[in-house]
Amino acid sequence: MPHSPEDKRRAVMRLRRIKGQVQALERAVEEGTDCSLLLQQIAALRGAANGLMAEVLDSHLRELFGTQKEDTPHAAVDPDVEIEALMKILRTYLK
Amino acid sequence: MPHSPEDKRRAVMRLRRIKGQVQALERAVEEGTDCSLLLQQIAALRGAANGLMAEVLDSHLRELFGTQKEDTPHAAVDPDVEIEALMKILRTYLK
Amino acid sequence: MPHSPEDKRRAVMRLRRIKGQVQALERAVEEGTDCSLLLQQIAALRGAANGLMAEVLDSHLRELFGTQKEDTPHAAVDPDVEIEALMKILRTYLK
Amino acid sequence: MPHSPEDKRRAVMRLRRIKGQVQALERAVEEGTDCSLLLQQIAALRGAANGLMAEVLDSHLRELFGTQKEDTPHAAVDPDVEIEALMKILRTYLK
Repeated sequence: MPHSPEDKRRAVMRLRRIKGQVQALERAVEEGTDCSLLLQQIAALRGAANGLMAEVLDSHLRELFGTQKEDTPHAAVDPDVEIEALMKILRTYLK
Repeated sequence: MPHSPEDKRRAVMRLRRIKGQVQALERAVEEGTDCSLLLQQIAALRGAANGLMAEVLDSHLRELFGTQKEDTPHAAVDPDVEIEALMKILRTYLK
Repeated sequence: MPHSPEDKRRAVMRLRRIKGQVQALERAVEEGTDCSLLLQQIAALRGAANGLMAEVLDSHLRELFGTQKEDTPHAAVDPDVEIEALMKILRTYLK
Repeated sequence: MPHSPEDKRRAVMRLRRIKGQVQALERAVEEGTDCSLLLQQIAALRGAANGLMAEVLDSHLRELFGTQKEDTPHAAVDPDVEIEALMKILRTYLK
């Protein structure tokens, strides 16, 4: 997982963009680019890794604990709503 | 910059390792690896990006503000000592 | 929640320590303490806030999705094991 | 430091707001507030600690390396411009 073909495709797209960022950084270092620009690109790389983390974490929580057809385990709470609330908070740590 | 050939070489080595991590992640997603393992690998990728950030930041601060042969600008402080103290703190944000 | 009296007590203890750190910082700023020391104390404050986050997040996940006496919802996975694995990863973001 | 009375006053104001947040959290835990709300408040507390970090770090860099009346140490660069560029990047790590 990410299980759905759509989730998988999106994760792969993100990873290809990240690979492009890493390659651009490698060239930038080789060419002696100004540190200040490198730092910006590294911050963007971290942002992209965090975005990927948030997406895979979201899939993971939904797969593990999201509602499924038949069961509605802890009836008082809607797990999907809870996961959404949780991800909203965790995303503030993944910027 | 990183200016010295040695700094440059180390930054490039780090970037190659990071590219390897990204490629391994892409394969892992394609193969439907368990999310929990993907999350570990993404956390390691972020750690590597942070390590690179710390290293380039350190070079940048030394280049901008480190002692140079002739001048010793704000005589009361040793800029190298200050930069080292600063990086020690910033590294706690870059884990 | 944190629901159990023990969890609650620990969260309150952490918050009291954090309050102590904030008060010490306020005094330090008033007294004109060196920035470098202030930065260390602020990094420690952030560490303490992250530690609290990790603890409350752990309680929250267990309450929402942890095993309960009667039901074992998605039989293939042990939610407690999954939560532990997840928290292990999230803690790397909460240092 | 922060040296100027204005910087000091602002740091103290931030710390008082943070103390208020910590006290509100302590009450919230005592009253058994929902974890989801606690997590939001803890994320806000971390944000406030990061905001304080950014501010003190900015003061610190300016004090150590900012331009001063007489000297213009490494003539090719304007340290104030460099510090501003640096803080812009570091702030992305301090959200």
